[in-house]
Amino acid sequence: MDEFARIAAYFTPLAAEAGRGLADDAAVLAPPPGRELVLTVDQMLEGVHFLPADDPALVARKLLRRNLSDLAAMGALPLGYLLTTALPKTVPRSWLTAFVTGLAQDQSIFGIGLFGGDTSSSRTDIGLTATLIGHVAPGQALPRNGARAGDRIFVTGTIGDAALGLEARQGRLADPSGWLTRRSLLPDPRVGLRLAGIVSAAIDISDGLVQDLGHLCRGSGLGAVIEAEKVPLSVEAAALGPAYLETRLTGGDDYELLLAVPPQHIAALREACGVLPVTEIGMFQAGSTVQVVSGSGEPLRLSDLGWRHF
Amino acid sequence: MDEFARIAAYFTPLAAEAGRGLADDAAVLAPPPGRELVLTVDQMLEGVHFLPADDPALVARKLLRRNLSDLAAMGALPLGYLLTTALPKTVPRSWLTAFVTGLAQDQSIFGIGLFGGDTSSSRTDIGLTATLIGHVAPGQALPRNGARAGDRIFVTGTIGDAALGLEARQGRLADPSGWLTRRSLLPDPRVGLRLAGIVSAAIDISDGLVQDLGHLCRGSGLGAVIEAEKVPLSVEAAALGPAYLETRLTGGDDYELLLAVPPQHIAALREACGVLPVTEIGMFQAGSTVQVVSGSGEPLRLSDLGWRHF
Repeated sequence: MDEFARIAAYFTPLAAEAGRGLADDAAVLAPPPGRELVLTVDQMLEGVHFLPADDPALVARKLLRRNLSDLAAMGALPLGYLLTTALPKTVPRSWLTAFVTGLAQDQSIFGIGLFGGDTSSSRTDIGLTATLIGHVAPGQALPRNGARAGDRIFVTGTIGDAALGLEARQGRLADPSGWLTRRSLLPDPRVGLRLAGIVSAAIDISDGLVQDLGHLCRGSGLGAVIEAEKVPLSVEAAALGPAYLETRLTGGDDYELLLAVPPQHIAALREACGVLPVTEIGMFQAGSTVQVVSGSGEPLRLSDLGWRHF
Repeated sequence: MDEFARIAAYFTPLAAEAGRGLADDAAVLAPPPGRELVLTVDQMLEGVHFLPADDPALVARKLLRRNLSDLAAMGALPLGYLLTTALPKTVPRSWLTAFVTGLAQDQSIFGIGLFGGDTSSSRTDIGLTATLIGHVAPGQALPRNGARAGDRIFVTGTIGDAALGLEARQGRLADPSGWLTRRSLLPDPRVGLRLAGIVSAAIDISDGLVQDLGHLCRGSGLGAVIEAEKVPLSVEAAALGPAYLETRLTGGDDYELLLAVPPQHIAALREACGVLPVTEIGMFQAGSTVQVVSGSGEPLRLSDLGWRHF
């Protein structure tokens, strides 16, 4: 099957209108009237971001979801995406079939379509990229640099599951319910929350809570303090106890949102998040460091400040 | 140097305004008022699209130019791009320095800026992608499917140089002036021509003249006939003689434009192209095949219809 037959068989059924049936040199997109576009790209590389034995459908969905999470951190709504695949000739058709099934599932869940892409062979590893295109009201994109001293630090969902799930997938801890593994393989990007005018800064937690909080601090010229005991945990993560505190605080891949919220906006934040849990874990303050303290206020030292893939 | 230091040192100086200093989760782009956006992505993979010893600055520029050529084939003007890099840890800083220098050169030549991207390590090969964003007047994007029987077939520039240049780079033919090699390493995308309303269909020649003409034919439900002797050649390609006819007609990577032009628009086409040579090489007709004929009208048989990388 040559490149063109492969595109027609696997990818053309995924095409959105802007993709012109994947039969043109490029996609043509009429942006929603009066909206600004939000653009982001992420890659998933074999041996770096996923393991060769991982389910290709989940690899596809995580590729989209990592990017959707970046749109969520900007307060943007998704429209569609461009895809590149670099596949060694040894990759069987069943891999591609499962990969495309995963894309189709998440296209349906998130209301997005395929705009275009590029397929190629590669010499050794599988390499994948997705460029996600979203939109936002003019001037309403959530910045990283808008936090002010006294803003409260909130996170959505639960923290640390994905890093613990990676340990479980590598056989280093037990995950009887499968929850931690699931969170590592299939994050839930928090797209669709209406946070403009409520939060003063936002980022998604991809590199780890402490490191991504550091990004918000640097962006805003501030320091921050968080209380380790306030960081929300899943039942499964909590059951592993204090030995995994550092993994939870510094492990990446959670794709929850980390938000700076002025105290007077806390009620509005809770309303905007609806059934999605949001938890206050600390506060921005003058300075330039991220401090993690115990319930009694004693500083905790972390040996590793962030996660950089396998 | 970690990921963030590397981005700050090498890529932040390339950022356009929409890129927010590469310090946010995504780029925010206010589309030009009343314009549609044109989006395309292409990859350059070590061992597939470039050779490990190639000059990294030229790899960078060819990455941009392959995508710019897709915008040119749509009649779009470029705005900027997103970039991904996957680099083995063995890649020296000097490679990245040269790569970024190449990006900067072409940003300046084509008036584009960096909107965002993603950097990662990889296990073995270098993998690069660029997503180019351009714009076009509503409804004015040049299609692949608009050719009609009787439309003349035109090409810009000269054909076959890049495929011959690849042979030269691999030591299989002599290239005393270096022209063929240069055309293989650094294509000239034909962006900026005002072809809307003049041509009825367009494509850029990336897979080879015959194969890309086949794409136009399939898109438009037509056949085509071209005269081999009319295909415009550089002095260097012509000097190699008839032995390389097939390489010239089927070799890829030229990034010239292949255009369908109604006879009454030929004068307007020449005016729109200015000093850039455009040459009539044949005609669209009823049918579904691409015929290549000699000056006396006899059909030529080509054993290979297109190029699919190294």
